[in-house]
Amino acid sequence: MSQTSFVAVDWGTSSFRLWVMDASGEVLNSTQGPFGMSRLKPTDFSRVLEENLNKLGVDADVPVVICGMAGAAQGWCEAPYLTAPTRLDALGKCAVAVANTMRHVRILPGIKQLSPANVMRGEETQISGLLHHHPDFSGTVCLPGTHTKWVRVADKSILDFETCMTGEQFAFFSETSVLSHSMTVEGWSDTAFANAVAVALDDPTSVPRLLFAIRAEMLIGEQSAAEARARLSGLLIGQELVATRPYWDQENVTLIGAPKLCDLYLQAFEQIGIAGRAMDSEAMTVAGLLFAYQIQQETHHV
Amino acid sequence: MSQTSFVAVDWGTSSFRLWVMDASGEVLNSTQGPFGMSRLKPTDFSRVLEENLNKLGVDADVPVVICGMAGAAQGWCEAPYLTAPTRLDALGKCAVAVANTMRHVRILPGIKQLSPANVMRGEETQISGLLHHHPDFSGTVCLPGTHTKWVRVADKSILDFETCMTGEQFAFFSETSVLSHSMTVEGWSDTAFANAVAVALDDPTSVPRLLFAIRAEMLIGEQSAAEARARLSGLLIGQELVATRPYWDQENVTLIGAPKLCDLYLQAFEQIGIAGRAMDSEAMTVAGLLFAYQIQQETHHV
Repeated sequence: MSQTSFVAVDWGTSSFRLWVMDASGEVLNSTQGPFGMSRLKPTDFSRVLEENLNKLGVDADVPVVICGMAGAAQGWCEAPYLTAPTRLDALGKCAVAVANTMRHVRILPGIKQLSPANVMRGEETQISGLLHHHPDFSGTVCLPGTHTKWVRVADKSILDFETCMTGEQFAFFSETSVLSHSMTVEGWSDTAFANAVAVALDDPTSVPRLLFAIRAEMLIGEQSAAEARARLSGLLIGQELVATRPYWDQENVTLIGAPKLCDLYLQAFEQIGIAGRAMDSEAMTVAGLLFAYQIQQETHHV
Repeated sequence: MSQTSFVAVDWGTSSFRLWVMDASGEVLNSTQGPFGMSRLKPTDFSRVLEENLNKLGVDADVPVVICGMAGAAQGWCEAPYLTAPTRLDALGKCAVAVANTMRHVRILPGIKQLSPANVMRGEETQISGLLHHHPDFSGTVCLPGTHTKWVRVADKSILDFETCMTGEQFAFFSETSVLSHSMTVEGWSDTAFANAVAVALDDPTSVPRLLFAIRAEMLIGEQSAAEARARLSGLLIGQELVATRPYWDQENVTLIGAPKLCDLYLQAFEQIGIAGRAMDSEAMTVAGLLFAYQIQQETHHV
């Protein structure tokens, strides 16, 4: 059996995921839970990590590498942002050692962009994982989710990026807003989605008034709840595509995200003639943390 | 002392407002509370109305006229939509008598538009109040709020209308979303508002990526919480103005809404050279209910 080499952790706003790794980058064991930053006080992080490591029987001398919001100012221990453009091997080199723990714990920095102002924490590690698998990658990466990132990558570096709050907006409109009365939790219509993407691409300025129309169609028209939900998604993703046009206009796009969400983006890409491919976000996160660990070993002789 | 002639009620999603009126349209007494439709079962409406009328000592034979969501399918008693274009005196003529109450209660219908699909319940009564004061009014009416309405009025009729969920979106972004960490409840900057309106008007397609930038400016820039809040408002109102351009492009605009909110729209109007004026929404509601009551008297000899 392989020997534990290090522990990789993705510690986000809402979730915690941990992988026990061997030296070759194979996952030996893993665990996860809903104890994200938003539920924790800074003094809670050490205990939560320890409980999870003990549960999996990880020895006290095994180093831990963490990415995500645990490194935010309001997280466990601030890992100051790198500034784009930046090489991605800097993530491992600039990782911050956490002082108030018995373990050897390092947190990777996020990346900021000064103008236009932007920040990321976690996505940079997934892109680093992409580079671990494809060292010569050059092009646009889209990471759809709560805050979807569009990132230009070249020369082993992040050049610049944009963020659209598409996932958070979809959750608000479909679960909380007046439109939520018109949505089913699981229903879907590919046709309604495609039509809405087309409408938003053709006239993006109409989207603010087309959102309420989803509700009105439900009250007085023939629209099903499944169509309403798909239409909302299509309007928001279409609007995002127009806002991020320079990122995909002359580029292939590599998606990193949840498979179902990536499929939606691939459908939309097909409508506008973008060649896209999807990579699994968990695999990219693990690869990015492995890459950072290897760099740290070279840098600090851990 | 004047004698009570009828009772006017604006019964919306979140609030209930009641005015005791004399025959000349003067308000003799009033009350209000948070018992809107969203908190009530259909069987609760009769009791809530009775409690409020008893509190004010209104005799059992005084007729009651209601506008708003109490007439929705999920409200007290459905008052089916009129279809735009429609004359506004039809509100009084088509009011629905409520069966399951000891009182003489009528609920005014809302208005629907078939294509593009749209609905309103409550705003039509305010516009009717505007016509009560200005019988020859012709032009565009904007009713800013949770769901801002833009309405074309001519020949004592509502011709067509659009809805933008600007107020509901502002509440979501400023109180719930990740941007809420960057907002103060009361802070404001006229300059930041004006700049954001200008940006949204100049490049409305950029708004989806500029929303998250408000958060990023807070984390890495010099922006104050007051500027962040005003910037969010300016982006959303600017985006709404672009979406509703046909309603204001060649028209003066009459605003009906809360005074502070109307002031914001007037500031934005000034930036794009629209002549606007603001009317108080409560006064317009009362006048609209009075107008409907008078029509009912002529129609039904109440």
